[in-house]
Amino acid sequence: MNYLGIDLGGTNIKGGVVNEAGEILREASRPTMVENGPDAIADGIAALIKDLEQGETFGGVGLGCPGTVDDESGEVVCAFNLNLIHYDLRGAVKSRTGYEIRLGNDANVAALAEATVGAGKGAHSTVVITLGTGVGCGVVLEGKMLTGYTGAASELGHMVIVEDGAKCTCGRRGCFEVYASATALIRMTREAMAANPKSVMYTVAQENGAVDGRTAFTAAERGDGTAAEVVHEYVKYLAAGVTNVVNIFFPEIVAFSGGVANQGEALLRPLREEVRRQEFGGAYVKRHTKLVPCTLGYQAGIIGAALLAKL
Amino acid sequence: MNYLGIDLGGTNIKGGVVNEAGEILREASRPTMVENGPDAIADGIAALIKDLEQGETFGGVGLGCPGTVDDESGEVVCAFNLNLIHYDLRGAVKSRTGYEIRLGNDANVAALAEATVGAGKGAHSTVVITLGTGVGCGVVLEGKMLTGYTGAASELGHMVIVEDGAKCTCGRRGCFEVYASATALIRMTREAMAANPKSVMYTVAQENGAVDGRTAFTAAERGDGTAAEVVHEYVKYLAAGVTNVVNIFFPEIVAFSGGVANQGEALLRPLREEVRRQEFGGAYVKRHTKLVPCTLGYQAGIIGAALLAKL
Repeated sequence: MNYLGIDLGGTNIKGGVVNEAGEILREASRPTMVENGPDAIADGIAALIKDLEQGETFGGVGLGCPGTVDDESGEVVCAFNLNLIHYDLRGAVKSRTGYEIRLGNDANVAALAEATVGAGKGAHSTVVITLGTGVGCGVVLEGKMLTGYTGAASELGHMVIVEDGAKCTCGRRGCFEVYASATALIRMTREAMAANPKSVMYTVAQENGAVDGRTAFTAAERGDGTAAEVVHEYVKYLAAGVTNVVNIFFPEIVAFSGGVANQGEALLRPLREEVRRQEFGGAYVKRHTKLVPCTLGYQAGIIGAALLAKL
Repeated sequence: MNYLGIDLGGTNIKGGVVNEAGEILREASRPTMVENGPDAIADGIAALIKDLEQGETFGGVGLGCPGTVDDESGEVVCAFNLNLIHYDLRGAVKSRTGYEIRLGNDANVAALAEATVGAGKGAHSTVVITLGTGVGCGVVLEGKMLTGYTGAASELGHMVIVEDGAKCTCGRRGCFEVYASATALIRMTREAMAANPKSVMYTVAQENGAVDGRTAFTAAERGDGTAAEVVHEYVKYLAAGVTNVVNIFFPEIVAFSGGVANQGEALLRPLREEVRRQEFGGAYVKRHTKLVPCTLGYQAGIIGAALLAKL
C-alpha cells in the first residue's frame, strides 16, 4: 500500500506518493497562496491530493508543516509564515477530501525520513540539523520522532549557547540558530569583509553575484586568512551546539542539510574534530556519534510526511 | 515479585528491596571502600546483596552508578570518583552472586524512579535535574530512560549555555553545570559578599556556620538587596538551561532535586516565570511543562535501580 506525503511550505505545497520502502513514485506541487488565508491553503492541499490520487486509495496522508503542530488535535498551533494560528488543518482537509491527515513539524518529519531511509537508515538514533535561514532540527530515537508533551519538542535551534547573546526571532538571546544558521555565516562573512577590504572574499562574492554561505569557504580554500578565520569562528559555534546535541542525546548519527551543509567535508572535517574534542567522556566511550551529510534532499519532507502517515 | 536496587556512591553503597509498586520494603548500606580498588567495590556490592537477600529470590538486580555505564556490555566505562575505568562490573557481581545486574547511570535511574512513582508519576515525560555539587540530569520519555547510542546520553549538565565561559570539569567552557550547580550558587554568593561587606549574607552565613546554597536565599528573604541580586542572577542561568530543556524535550514535568531545590517555591516561582517567558511558542501552545520538586529524596536512586531491573 502507498502513502501520500505533503510538505507544506511558505511558497509551495509539495506532495508525493510514497511506497512502503520510502520511495517517491510520483510528485506534484501547487502554490501555497498564503495571501488568500488559511482556507485557501486547505483548498490547495485538497487539490494536490486530488492531483496525486489518480484513482488510487492511500494507506494514509501525512503532512509536514513549519512551526508548531498538534497531531493529537489535528491543529496547526502556530506557523507564522503561513498565517496559521490555532487552525484545524485536519478538519479542513477531512471535510474537503475525506482523508484524516497526520500532522508533523516539517523538520521533524524530514528527520524521520533521513532516519528511516536516508543518512540514518539502520541507526539507533538520528538527529537532523538543517543549516538554512534558521537552524531546523528533528530528533528520531529508535524510530520514533521526538515531539514531546506539546508536539513542539526538538527545537534545538532555540537552545541558548551564548547567554545574553544576540537577539533571536523567538524572543530569547543567544540561540544556536543565531550563530549557526546560514544567515549567521553570512553576517560573520560581511563583518570580516568590512574589516578587511583586501580579502579574497570580495572576489568570490563578485564571481557568485552575492555574499552567501559559500563566500568564506571558497575564499578560505584559495588561501585567504580572513576567510579561514570566518570559517573557524562559524565552526566553533556550530560545534558548541552540536556537542550539546551529542551530550544530550548521544545519537548514532547527526546528519546535516541546508545550504551550508553543501560544503561537505570542508565543513564536516573541522566540525568532527571539535566535537570529538569536546564531547562528554569522549576519551572513554567506545562508540561515537557520526557526523554526516543528509542524503534525501528536498524529498525528505515528502517522504517523512508519508512515513508519519504509515506509523 | 520484588527487585533489588543498588545505588553505588563514592562513600556508601545503598541497597533496597523494592516491590512491584516501587516501594522500598527493606534497606541496607555498606561503605564503598574506593581506596581498596575495583574488586573491593564488587565485593561490597556482593555483600550488600547477601545482606538484603534473606532467603528471598529477586526478579532482578539493578545498579545505579555515577559516570558513564554501558548496560549492553555490563561495563562501567568511566566513573572517576570510584576509580572505575572500563571495569566489567556485571561480570564481577555475577561471579560473586549469580545475579546478572542491569546497569544505569545514577542520575538516569533516579529520573526513572521519579518518572514512574515520584514527581512524574502518570506524566508523558519527565526530566529530573539535580542541583548539587554538579548538575545531574536524567530524561525519561514515555517510560523509557534516554541513554543514547553509547549509554552516555542525558548529560544536560554538560550543555554549553555560555560559549567560551568558565571552565568545566568535563573540559568544555560554559557548561550549564558551571552556572546552575550549588557550587555555582555558592561561588556567586561569595563574590557578592566580598563586594558588599555590609550584606545580611554575612549574618546568615555566621548563623549557619558556613556560606552555602541557602545563604543568599535566606538573606534575600530578610530584605537584603545584594542577596536578592545573587538569587536573580542564579535563577537567570538556571532558567537558560531549563528553557533549553523545555525547547528540546518539551517534557510534561521537569523535577528538581539536590541542595538548592530545597528552597522550594522561593526557587521555583521565579524560575517558572522566566522559563514561561522564554519557552518556544509559549504564547500559543496550550500545554506547558510543569516545574516541580522531586518527591522521592535519596530513595530515588535505589527505587530507580530496582525499576531498571524490572524493565
